Amino acid sequence: MLSGPSGVGKGSLLTALLGQVPGVARSISATTRAARPGETDGVDYHFLPRERFLADAADGRFYEYAEYNHNYYGTPYAQVDAMLDKGVDVILEIEVQGAKIVRGLMPDAILIFVQPPSLESLEDRLRKRGTDSEARIAERIQLAAAELSCLPLYDYSIVNDDFDQALDQLRCIVIAERCRIAETADTAMQSSNDR
Amino acid sequence: MLSGPSGVGKGSLLTALLGQVPGVARSISATTRAARPGETDGVDYHFLPRERFLADAADGRFYEYAEYNHNYYGTPYAQVDAMLDKGVDVILEIEVQGAKIVRGLMPDAILIFVQPPSLESLEDRLRKRGTDSEARIAERIQLAAAELSCLPLYDYSIVNDDFDQALDQLRCIVIAERCRIAETADTAMQSSNDR
Repeated sequence: MLSGPSGVGKGSLLTALLGQVPGVARSISATTRAARPGETDGVDYHFLPRERFLADAADGRFYEYAEYNHNYYGTPYAQVDAMLDKGVDVILEIEVQGAKIVRGLMPDAILIFVQPPSLESLEDRLRKRGTDSEARIAERIQLAAAELSCLPLYDYSIVNDDFDQALDQLRCIVIAERCRIAETADTAMQSSNDR
Repeated sequence: MLSGPSGVGKGSLLTALLGQVPGVARSISATTRAARPGETDGVDYHFLPRERFLADAADGRFYEYAEYNHNYYGTPYAQVDAMLDKGVDVILEIEVQGAKIVRGLMPDAILIFVQPPSLESLEDRLRKRGTDSEARIAERIQLAAAELSCLPLYDYSIVNDDFDQALDQLRCIVIAERCRIAETADTAMQSSNDR
């Protein structure tokens, strides 16, 4: 799971990671918000009508869902589980509250937090992006501070100061976690001998 | 700490790693065995006379020491601690029993095990190296099997099948561990703000 304040560059890091590391895929969230120009259904999000989304939620089809800015966002079980079953490492771009819920459901999940070098630099970035009003930027910065307070719950922290370095760190976390010896696991050699 | 059977390629991986990642250094062991041609005191080992080694051991100057093939080998405290104090990541090439001891003394230490793709491939490698008798090779393979049984104590496993891939994995483990959030640590942002 990849969390971090809005504007910190999670999406760009994730897109670049997918181009570098085989066997990694992005979980596509469901949302009730309208598609923005350039967004494709099933690629950027699963765009669902409000009733369908709430019916899916009532059927327990989401790992977690939340209302955010008057729209619902959720992480569909079926899609994530299908990829995990194929041995794919699934990456969820997920806000802090959702990450807490998924961690409870999947204790082996790895939590990575992408930090800005400072809140000031995040403010600069949001201002340069030019998509938010000053009031909205102030709200985002407050939210970022709240999210940063959850950092001790995470396994890894990446400070996105230099993009290439942050991308290398993200890639290294994925590669290293694949080398990790699970508490209950047999040795790779033993299991390869079993085949 | 980097462990693994004799002949698995730990030394070559470590040398290559030191050339790639800044802020990493190798701990130089002390030994009572004679320097081999091409080995330099203070670079490959600290070559110590037997009495000096045992006096140092009696003074508690080693994290761990062991007798191996009629010679003593030890990991000096002073050297490792001086590097750690400077913020350097110190890598110990250490056999399994020594790794267990150091882990007890430094619970935050990371244990990496380098595996051969199979015991058969290790045997091939030792035979091609041509430095051991058949009886010695058989003994080394038995020892390798014993060492592999300790793999569940380790944090990470690297299978040294393809050297470049194994090196990348080793590098990734170091980079990823630097991103790891310590249980008690403040956020990087908070600590950078404190500076």
